Amino acid sequence: MPYELHYWPTIQGRGEFARLALEAAGADYIDVARGCEGEGQGVPATMHFIESDEVQHPPFAPPFLVHGKVIVGQSAAILLYLGPRLGLVGKSETARLWTHQLQLTIADVVAEAHETHHPVGTGLYYEDQKKEALRRAKEFRTARIKKFLAWFESVLERNPGGSGHLVGARLSYADLSLFQLVEGLLYAFPKASRRALKKAPQVMALHDSVAQHKRVAAYLASERRIPFNEDGIFRRYPELDA
Amino acid sequence: MPYELHYWPTIQGRGEFARLALEAAGADYIDVARGCEGEGQGVPATMHFIESDEVQHPPFAPPFLVHGKVIVGQSAAILLYLGPRLGLVGKSETARLWTHQLQLTIADVVAEAHETHHPVGTGLYYEDQKKEALRRAKEFRTARIKKFLAWFESVLERNPGGSGHLVGARLSYADLSLFQLVEGLLYAFPKASRRALKKAPQVMALHDSVAQHKRVAAYLASERRIPFNEDGIFRRYPELDA
Repeated sequence: MPYELHYWPTIQGRGEFARLALEAAGADYIDVARGCEGEGQGVPATMHFIESDEVQHPPFAPPFLVHGKVIVGQSAAILLYLGPRLGLVGKSETARLWTHQLQLTIADVVAEAHETHHPVGTGLYYEDQKKEALRRAKEFRTARIKKFLAWFESVLERNPGGSGHLVGARLSYADLSLFQLVEGLLYAFPKASRRALKKAPQVMALHDSVAQHKRVAAYLASERRIPFNEDGIFRRYPELDA
Repeated sequence: MPYELHYWPTIQGRGEFARLALEAAGADYIDVARGCEGEGQGVPATMHFIESDEVQHPPFAPPFLVHGKVIVGQSAAILLYLGPRLGLVGKSETARLWTHQLQLTIADVVAEAHETHHPVGTGLYYEDQKKEALRRAKEFRTARIKKFLAWFESVLERNPGGSGHLVGARLSYADLSLFQLVEGLLYAFPKASRRALKKAPQVMALHDSVAQHKRVAAYLASERRIPFNEDGIFRRYPELDA
């Protein structure tokens, strides 16, 4: 039974964390909203789960995963579900909790990255909150990026399984998500992120090693990887970087 | 072995979600940072886990829970750990995932509530971002509160276990957290929240029923419940409400 991933079809956004896990594991999955409406896919198929009164566990928003009778929303919860099934998390409760905690902290950085271009609210265009965005992005650039990266660096340094992974000695979904976070930061804030990453060499090394993972590399080179753009979470507005 | 909860000693903040679960279950726990430094407690005991190089799983920030050898940070992950141990989540994987997904969505609202008074960043005082806060709070009041509450209302309406609980027919940590969210919204945005809650009667009824839960009521009336204040996540700045 293939996994059905539901997310906005034109951006990486929060759906990319689940997509990377599915791709890295070579899982059989359907990217539903990017499929053909004629075949029962496309955005209407996704909106059904959000809007229909018949859905018992309606997601608040995409991304969400449908797998048989299971519907699970929230990117971190999707990975909590997928992790053991895709072999992307350790077997012990301690490993699973720690991996999830790392994922939730990555989700916090992602939310803050989104706030840099939408500090007033998601209901307004960037152009209508540009002044506020300039202030917010400065704080994110000068304080937050380095604080978060320093923490992930210390996690890698302390991992008894070696600094090549966040948890244990094997690839986990948290590694994939940290790769994606670094990708996004480098896209949106190339100057500030390169500076900060110089002080987080293990994070950078993990990023590079994930990029070379056979199935991840094939995915990144494929058309299934949507390029970053200015509708997503990580947006390159040069005026916000320095 | 008592649970050790670590959180800033003068605010409810994100620590309150774990505290409510511990209190509702009548669990044996120590609120470490509120204890005496002379007895090895207080804020220094909390900072040890954040700052010491010897901690293998350092939390990024409070709240975190220490239980024997387990250290778990991120309020939603703490509840993922505590839920089964305190009898505050169903036994099936489906129930556990759905409860967690609800918790993560509550965490999203909490983060947005914090953004209303800190839209530019946590490193600055409210007074230095008041202009931005006025815009952000307006968006939160007029669009976000009602959207989130409508979603929780629909979750309650669809629960096959009855609208008295979010999941199944028994109290879960998500019920406790939704109670806390409503408490916080009513404190910070009394006018806007009362208006929105009129359209979410099941949410309001769940809030009221949690407040009457025997152990919760005893906790709320005790000195262990820190009053809301303007250092926490939910702050009453009258200029931000309408």
